[in-house]
Amino acid sequence: MDYYESSLRLHALNKGKIEVAPKVPVKTKDDLAVAYTPGVAEPCMLIKQDPENARAYSIKANTVAVVSDGSATLGLGNIGGLASLPAMEGKALLLKEFGGIDAFPICLDTQDPDEIVKTVKNIAPVFGGVNLAGIAAPACFEIEKRLKAELDIPVFQDNTSGIAMAVSAAVLNAFRLLGKPLSDVRAVICGAGAAGNAIAKMLPKIGLRDIIVCDSKGIIGASRFTEFGEDKLELLEFTNKDGLTGGLAEAVRGRDLLIGVSKSEALTAGLVSSMAKDAVVFALSCPEPEILPDAAKAAGARIVGTGLLRFPNTVDPMLLSPAIFRGTFDARASVITEAMMLAAVQALAGLVSDKDLSEDHILPSVFETGLCEKIAKSLASAWEKM
Amino acid sequence: MDYYESSLRLHALNKGKIEVAPKVPVKTKDDLAVAYTPGVAEPCMLIKQDPENARAYSIKANTVAVVSDGSATLGLGNIGGLASLPAMEGKALLLKEFGGIDAFPICLDTQDPDEIVKTVKNIAPVFGGVNLAGIAAPACFEIEKRLKAELDIPVFQDNTSGIAMAVSAAVLNAFRLLGKPLSDVRAVICGAGAAGNAIAKMLPKIGLRDIIVCDSKGIIGASRFTEFGEDKLELLEFTNKDGLTGGLAEAVRGRDLLIGVSKSEALTAGLVSSMAKDAVVFALSCPEPEILPDAAKAAGARIVGTGLLRFPNTVDPMLLSPAIFRGTFDARASVITEAMMLAAVQALAGLVSDKDLSEDHILPSVFETGLCEKIAKSLASAWEKM
Repeated sequence: MDYYESSLRLHALNKGKIEVAPKVPVKTKDDLAVAYTPGVAEPCMLIKQDPENARAYSIKANTVAVVSDGSATLGLGNIGGLASLPAMEGKALLLKEFGGIDAFPICLDTQDPDEIVKTVKNIAPVFGGVNLAGIAAPACFEIEKRLKAELDIPVFQDNTSGIAMAVSAAVLNAFRLLGKPLSDVRAVICGAGAAGNAIAKMLPKIGLRDIIVCDSKGIIGASRFTEFGEDKLELLEFTNKDGLTGGLAEAVRGRDLLIGVSKSEALTAGLVSSMAKDAVVFALSCPEPEILPDAAKAAGARIVGTGLLRFPNTVDPMLLSPAIFRGTFDARASVITEAMMLAAVQALAGLVSDKDLSEDHILPSVFETGLCEKIAKSLASAWEKM
Repeated sequence: MDYYESSLRLHALNKGKIEVAPKVPVKTKDDLAVAYTPGVAEPCMLIKQDPENARAYSIKANTVAVVSDGSATLGLGNIGGLASLPAMEGKALLLKEFGGIDAFPICLDTQDPDEIVKTVKNIAPVFGGVNLAGIAAPACFEIEKRLKAELDIPVFQDNTSGIAMAVSAAVLNAFRLLGKPLSDVRAVICGAGAAGNAIAKMLPKIGLRDIIVCDSKGIIGASRFTEFGEDKLELLEFTNKDGLTGGLAEAVRGRDLLIGVSKSEALTAGLVSSMAKDAVVFALSCPEPEILPDAAKAAGARIVGTGLLRFPNTVDPMLLSPAIFRGTFDARASVITEAMMLAAVQALAGLVSDKDLSEDHILPSVFETGLCEKIAKSLASAWEKM
C-alpha cells in the first residue's frame, strides 16, 4: 500500500479528517430558543457568576487544543503552522477515536515563543487542556514551562513528555523481557532536541542511572558547557557521570540501550554491533528510522523499536495522549504531575502480560481493547492519591 | 415553556452543544498510516509547497472561527469570553445546522483590540473565515477593520453587518408591503453602538435618504461633534441632514421607521404613537425588546419586528450568517464585499413572495427550506460578477 498516495486521496476526498457536529437538535423554534437565544443566556450568566460552571454547561470540560507552530512536525522539519494542519487534525482525530476527547487543531501563524504563549492563553477559555505538538526545541521547553505556570488547565507536550513516556514504557518492558535490572542498564540517547532531552529526564525516574546523551557534535559533557543553553546544561547534572568525551562511536560502544531521536543517519550497523550483548535499539526518527529493524537485528540488536506502525514495537506518543487527557479530565485534575505520568507509563507497560511479552511485542497496539481506559484510570488514581 | 430552565438542562446533560467528530475511519493500522503518520506527511508537504493546497487537503476550506471576547453578548452586557462560550457554541451549532459550516468557538481571555487582532491572526491558518460576534463598540469596528485588512480570509461580524443585513431585508419587505418607496422613508435608529452604527451605514445602500441616529444623549448631529469618536463622526456625513437636535421625542416624532438597538427602555408607547401613520417598529434589544409588539401595535405601529423567535418578524443575523459563509466558501471568495452583502439582503427579502407577505410575515423563518442555499447562491453570484 502506498500510504502517501492513499493519504492524499483520503484528505482530498474528505477535505480534512474532522468536523464539528451538533450534539443537540435544532429542528424547531423551541430547540432554537433553548440552544440559542434567549435560553442560552442562563448558562452564560451562571458561568459569569462562577467560572467553574463552564465545565458543567459548555464544551470546556472535554475539549483540548492541539497546538502547533509546525516547527518540528512529524520529522518533516520546519513546515510552519498551516502545513502542519493535516498532522494536527490527525492528532485531534486520534484523541477522539481513542480517548473520546473533543480536540481541535490550533495551527499557529507565529513561531515566536512569547506570541505562542500569549495566543494560547488568549484562547484558553474554550479549552479544558492543551496538547502541544510539533514544536521545535528549545522553544518547546519554554512554551511548555510558561503555559504550565500561567494556565489553570493541564498542558501536555507530545514531543517531550509524550515520547518520553512511550520510550519509558518500552524500556521497562524490553528489560523486563531480558531480565536485566534497569539500574544496570547503560543507555545512550542520540539526539538532544525536544524528545532526547525529555527522554533523558524521564529515564532516571524509572530507575536508569547511566545515561549518555549525544547531540550533533558528540557526547554532551561538562567539557562542552560553554556551548549549551539551559536545556542542555540541565542534562549535565545527571547524565554522563563518568565524563565521557568523543562522538557517537565512543558513546554507543558497549551500551545496552540506544535511543535514536534525531534525523541523523549516523546510526550505522557498525555502531549497533559495537553495543553490548542483547542490545535494545529504538530508532525513532520519522518517517524514516535511523536504522531499519532488520539491519539493526543483523548487527546484533536483540530488541528493536521504531516510531512506525509497519514495524513491530511502535513507540508513539499516541499510545498515551488520548489516555492522558481522558484520565486528567475524568479526575478533574488541573495539572498533569510527574506521578500521574509515571503511573501512565507503568499502566502502558503493564498492558503486555509476561505471557505475551516477546522481542516483537514489548508494547501493546494502539487498537488494544481497554488501552485508553486502563491507562486513564491509573493516571486518575495517581491524581486522587495526591 | 421555560426556556431558561430547559436551556440549563440541555447544556448540563450534553456538556455543551457541539463536538468534534471523525470524518474518516481509524479502525486498522492502514487507516492510521493514511490518516496519521507516515501518510499525512504528503498533504503536509503539498501545503508547505503551496499554501492554497490547505483548502484541498485540510478542514480549512469549510471551517470558521466564531470569535468573541464576550464584551457584548446577546444583550447580556460584558460577561467576558468564558461566559460567552455557550452563546458562541450556539452560533457554531447554527452555522453547521443551517449552512453546513464547521464552526468552532474561539472565546477570548482578552478584551484588548490589539491582542484580539494578533490572536485571531495567529490562529488563522486553521480557518477559512472569521465570524466576529458579541464584541462591544467601538472596539468591534477597529477589530473588524484591521482583521479585514490584515487577513487573507473573509471576516464577517454579526453585531455589525449581520444585524444590518437582517434589518435591511426587513425594511425592504415592510415598505414593499406598505407600498412606500424607500427614498421617502424617514427613519430613526435608537442606539449608536455596533448595530446602530452598521444599520445606519447600510440603509442608504438600499435606498433610504433620511436617517436620524440617537445615542443615549440624544440625536447625533454636528452640534455635538466634539463628543464623538471616529465611529459617530462618520455618521455625521450622511445622517441627520436637516441638523435636527434634541432627544428621543424630537427624533421619533413623525418618522415612518423606528429601529431600536439599545438596552434603552425609553421606547414608550407614547413615542411610538408620535410616529407617522403606518409606522414600522423594529425593537431589537435582547432578551427583552425595548417595547413589546402588542404595546407597539396598540400605540399605532402597523408592522413590528423583534430579535426574538417567540414573536412574528424575527430580525436575527442568524438568518444570514450560515448563508454568508456557505456562499463565500462555495464561491471561494477571499472577502465579503458590499455587493455580496446587498445581494444576500435582496435574496433574503425575496424569499417572502408578494402572496405571503403580510404584517406578521415580512421575513422568512430560519427553518424555511432552501433559505441558506438561495441566499448563498445570490451572494456567490455577486462575487463571480465582480
